[in-house]
Amino acid sequence: MPTYKAPLRDIKFLMNELLDAPAELAKIPYYTTNETADADLMSQVLDEAARFVEGELVPLNAIGDKEGCVRHDNGDVTTPTGFKAAYDKYRAAGWTALDADPTYGGQGMPHLISNVLVEMMNSANVAWSMYPGLSHGAYSALHAVGSDALKDLYLPKIVSGEWTGTMCLTEPHAGTDLGMIRTKATDNGDGSYAISGTKIFISAGEHDMADNIVHLVLARLEGSPEGTKGISLFLVPKFLPTADGKVGERNGVVCGSLEHKMGIHGNATAVLNFDQAQGWLVGEINKGMNHMFIMMNAARLGTGLQGLGLGEVAYQNALAYAKDRTQMRHEPRVNPGEQADPILIHPDVRRMLLTGKAYTEAGRAMAMWLALSIDQEHHHPDEKARKEAADLVALLTPIAKAFMTDNGFNIAVQSQQVFGGHGYIQEWGMEQFVRDARIGQIYEGTNGIQALDLLGRKVLMDGGKKLQKLAGTLQEFVEENESDEHIGDYATQLGKAAQQLGSLTMVIGQKAMGEGGADEVNAAAVDYLRFFGHVVYGYLWARMAKIAHEQIEAGNDKDGFYTAKVQTAKFYFAKLFPEIKTLATTIKAGNETLAVDDRAVFNWEGALVPA
Amino acid sequence: MPTYKAPLRDIKFLMNELLDAPAELAKIPYYTTNETADADLMSQVLDEAARFVEGELVPLNAIGDKEGCVRHDNGDVTTPTGFKAAYDKYRAAGWTALDADPTYGGQGMPHLISNVLVEMMNSANVAWSMYPGLSHGAYSALHAVGSDALKDLYLPKIVSGEWTGTMCLTEPHAGTDLGMIRTKATDNGDGSYAISGTKIFISAGEHDMADNIVHLVLARLEGSPEGTKGISLFLVPKFLPTADGKVGERNGVVCGSLEHKMGIHGNATAVLNFDQAQGWLVGEINKGMNHMFIMMNAARLGTGLQGLGLGEVAYQNALAYAKDRTQMRHEPRVNPGEQADPILIHPDVRRMLLTGKAYTEAGRAMAMWLALSIDQEHHHPDEKARKEAADLVALLTPIAKAFMTDNGFNIAVQSQQVFGGHGYIQEWGMEQFVRDARIGQIYEGTNGIQALDLLGRKVLMDGGKKLQKLAGTLQEFVEENESDEHIGDYATQLGKAAQQLGSLTMVIGQKAMGEGGADEVNAAAVDYLRFFGHVVYGYLWARMAKIAHEQIEAGNDKDGFYTAKVQTAKFYFAKLFPEIKTLATTIKAGNETLAVDDRAVFNWEGALVPA
Repeated sequence: MPTYKAPLRDIKFLMNELLDAPAELAKIPYYTTNETADADLMSQVLDEAARFVEGELVPLNAIGDKEGCVRHDNGDVTTPTGFKAAYDKYRAAGWTALDADPTYGGQGMPHLISNVLVEMMNSANVAWSMYPGLSHGAYSALHAVGSDALKDLYLPKIVSGEWTGTMCLTEPHAGTDLGMIRTKATDNGDGSYAISGTKIFISAGEHDMADNIVHLVLARLEGSPEGTKGISLFLVPKFLPTADGKVGERNGVVCGSLEHKMGIHGNATAVLNFDQAQGWLVGEINKGMNHMFIMMNAARLGTGLQGLGLGEVAYQNALAYAKDRTQMRHEPRVNPGEQADPILIHPDVRRMLLTGKAYTEAGRAMAMWLALSIDQEHHHPDEKARKEAADLVALLTPIAKAFMTDNGFNIAVQSQQVFGGHGYIQEWGMEQFVRDARIGQIYEGTNGIQALDLLGRKVLMDGGKKLQKLAGTLQEFVEENESDEHIGDYATQLGKAAQQLGSLTMVIGQKAMGEGGADEVNAAAVDYLRFFGHVVYGYLWARMAKIAHEQIEAGNDKDGFYTAKVQTAKFYFAKLFPEIKTLATTIKAGNETLAVDDRAVFNWEGALVPA
Repeated sequence: MPTYKAPLRDIKFLMNELLDAPAELAKIPYYTTNETADADLMSQVLDEAARFVEGELVPLNAIGDKEGCVRHDNGDVTTPTGFKAAYDKYRAAGWTALDADPTYGGQGMPHLISNVLVEMMNSANVAWSMYPGLSHGAYSALHAVGSDALKDLYLPKIVSGEWTGTMCLTEPHAGTDLGMIRTKATDNGDGSYAISGTKIFISAGEHDMADNIVHLVLARLEGSPEGTKGISLFLVPKFLPTADGKVGERNGVVCGSLEHKMGIHGNATAVLNFDQAQGWLVGEINKGMNHMFIMMNAARLGTGLQGLGLGEVAYQNALAYAKDRTQMRHEPRVNPGEQADPILIHPDVRRMLLTGKAYTEAGRAMAMWLALSIDQEHHHPDEKARKEAADLVALLTPIAKAFMTDNGFNIAVQSQQVFGGHGYIQEWGMEQFVRDARIGQIYEGTNGIQALDLLGRKVLMDGGKKLQKLAGTLQEFVEENESDEHIGDYATQLGKAAQQLGSLTMVIGQKAMGEGGADEVNAAAVDYLRFFGHVVYGYLWARMAKIAHEQIEAGNDKDGFYTAKVQTAKFYFAKLFPEIKTLATTIKAGNETLAVDDRAVFNWEGALVPA
């Protein structure tokens, strides 16, 4: 059975040394007023989070996978043994309220802290963690654009965790392409709407963990235009609340079935049938897509954190196994008197483990940087600082989602490989990590869609402004450090890669404006996102290595933490960062070799590409 | 539910045009005498194989995954519904005897043909196919080194499929490291031995599909030396045969449990307890490891064919889905009157599909080249030709196993991605391909072990002789074609890559002879195998493109098959082959960044690497 220890040492290093978060948050009155960003307090909260996650959620992970969720004939759903009890403890300890608005009962802690909690929860039990995760997305959207009446009625219940939330977007024929949704809303004339239609793939869509479920539903109001411009967002509770916020009558939304999935068995992925369900408009008519993206962006970072968390826990277990399992002999011997040495001594095993460590620690640094930026975006008193933070968040969110879930899946697969045949056996738990990690690359916008969002929307349609801002930050770092005796080489490599990213962006942009059109963006996007991800991770590894060298020179490396950082950075630049060489080539190759003769290559008559 | 059509057009292209197999086989009296290598006959057999596989095995694949195998209290095992009936048909049609020795009832067809059958079976139902697959491995070892008495008694039953076989190698503490096995054999003094011990991960180890199961078991004869030099191979039947080959008394081998696995649920992965089971020596005492490698090499190619077959079927289904599923609009439109266009029109979807196609078709070419070489190795009248074929087989086997299973898994994952959320749902069948493909990278020697076999044993310990022989073949091809108007660029790229492979080999070899020692081989091996794989695939794609261009110019491309080959080759060189740029860098980086301070990086006191 797998184990998990929250990587608190690394988290606190990032919080205090890399990001200098207590000082940054001290500039924000929202946190100083509420006294929620004190360094000691944040540290204590993280310790407590680790205890909860390790003690309550880890033991339920395999149970959830094995039992899954059960739908009964009346549409009710039973979650796996122990899930509700753990949720009750989670609520009672106040974790649902951690970063929520104090106006509605929240604790007002920085998003930085809830981000770390979510990473830990994803390491421990990703299927369980999606129940509060989806609630948090619903909270964010409702908080941002809901009417005061809706907020007053629903937010305290969601913040306290008494009620949970969902995001209802997908329909059978409309996944990526939400403009095609058919769920419709009719004005009841009393301020409410009647919602009818079928939604699929609704995570945490029905369950027995909370008294009520608040669905946020994309639907088309009768008479609205076709496509994305005619979509509105509605709040549809499972039970209609009474005026004083109690659970009232059952509403017309029922779970029609649960999906049988590759993984995340403990989370109920529901088909929801809305039949004249009573709902209320959230935000403005026909602005549903914009409002939904508030949830969606949070969900994207949350999904990235699934990749991060699963990579971390898979790595931890592979490392433990590699110390314990003895096979073959190494020269010089580790166990001279015994038949074989621990497999951790073999370089190829170390390569797999270091890959996990290097991607995970850089991913954590990026996620926490992004989370701190979200705090600044939301609450910084200076408008320019808010705008800069918002730009960085917009730019890094698709990278956080796609790069972290791709790397997380690959780490889970490599960590499983460390176990040899035992990795394929369910009782060891490694194959569950692989199955659970796989969905992160698919949902909340596939990683291909993330890449288009990055390259198309966040870079090219923006005229490269956000990219240039980040490039300026990197360039400054490179100039300051390219002669550094320790990290000068990394800075130089980073500088070259950042320049190359700029020139690749130009090449794609020019092709896209020419005959190639949008196909050139589509053809390059996935490789471009990976290249960009390495530039960000390279920057973060160089910065982490710089701090680590300083601490080593100051004699502060008693536990070897900084030595580990230095050596992992070295590994990253030697073995992982060079992926950009291939990516530069494949990005430049563009769409030319993809624009094949469809009749010949794919036996497809539907295509326009000429023979 | 997934579908599958055997890629007969491609198979026959490779057989007749790339490999010129009928002419090559006509040089071998074994086949001309038996009249089994006639081009028309081979073609008809393949057509018949496709019909069987598509009709009988495809429909059982999802059933096998869902039901799995059931072990009863007495140790008996029931296979999934329909498995035995399909096996009975398979036997009745003579497929178990296809390439077996006519002396024992075999049909004596070329290995080339059975190789294609196995690919198809793996596409259709890999869990089912492992039952006859393991039998075939047992057949090969027994045929090669068994005594006449053993062969006369057992081979006709295995060839007819009445009895099946297994390979019993792994023990709980001994996977990669078979030198540590503890199963022991005691001489009964009557020509038989008493075998006691526990074997795990025994594929097809117990089932209800055949009347008897013939276990080939590695065990240590009392008094034999420790390590691999003290291991012998024994035949241990489930039921002791009577002198006239009937099933007699139950022997002391019982299935203690079945593993719960990530995939291949339809195959019974057994723990086998041997308790004073009666067995007979196969081959020579203490030569068990050598004898086992006869099975193992066949199993390695067979495992590679699992990667190939699963890649092919995953690709086929992703392509079908991409034609059918409409999401988003492309300019120019494919469906101008409708809401959305088929996703096959989007370049990133084409990239995923072409990746599957390019790796699969090159893999098939390599596998069939290897299979034809096995025919030459076994039966060619000229000793030099046999030796050359044997060298090529030895060199390419680890690549076939590791490169094809890694690519097959990646194709399954990318093909699943084409389905979006539906790919994660069991009923679509794509996630089963991913789970089933995962084991190929692990068993029959992990892919890391394959890489060590290639670089350490097949290249460096051989003084580079086998590599130079292949390099000579490539160099000749490059020189002949580097000015070719169509494939000159591929030939040039291939020539450079082959030279780089040679120089990388030298670099690693020198490091390994110096202070770095074996760790440098271990550190580079996995990346080296991937680089080598691309050189082989590049060679085969260039050759396929050359033939295709000739046929196009001759006006023989009515169905577009050759156009597809030309365009897929172009894609391969533009988008996949450039992986070697990164690999060259990471190979050169060697062991330096892996030799980290273990106390600091891995919190490990067991290590020798100094702080």
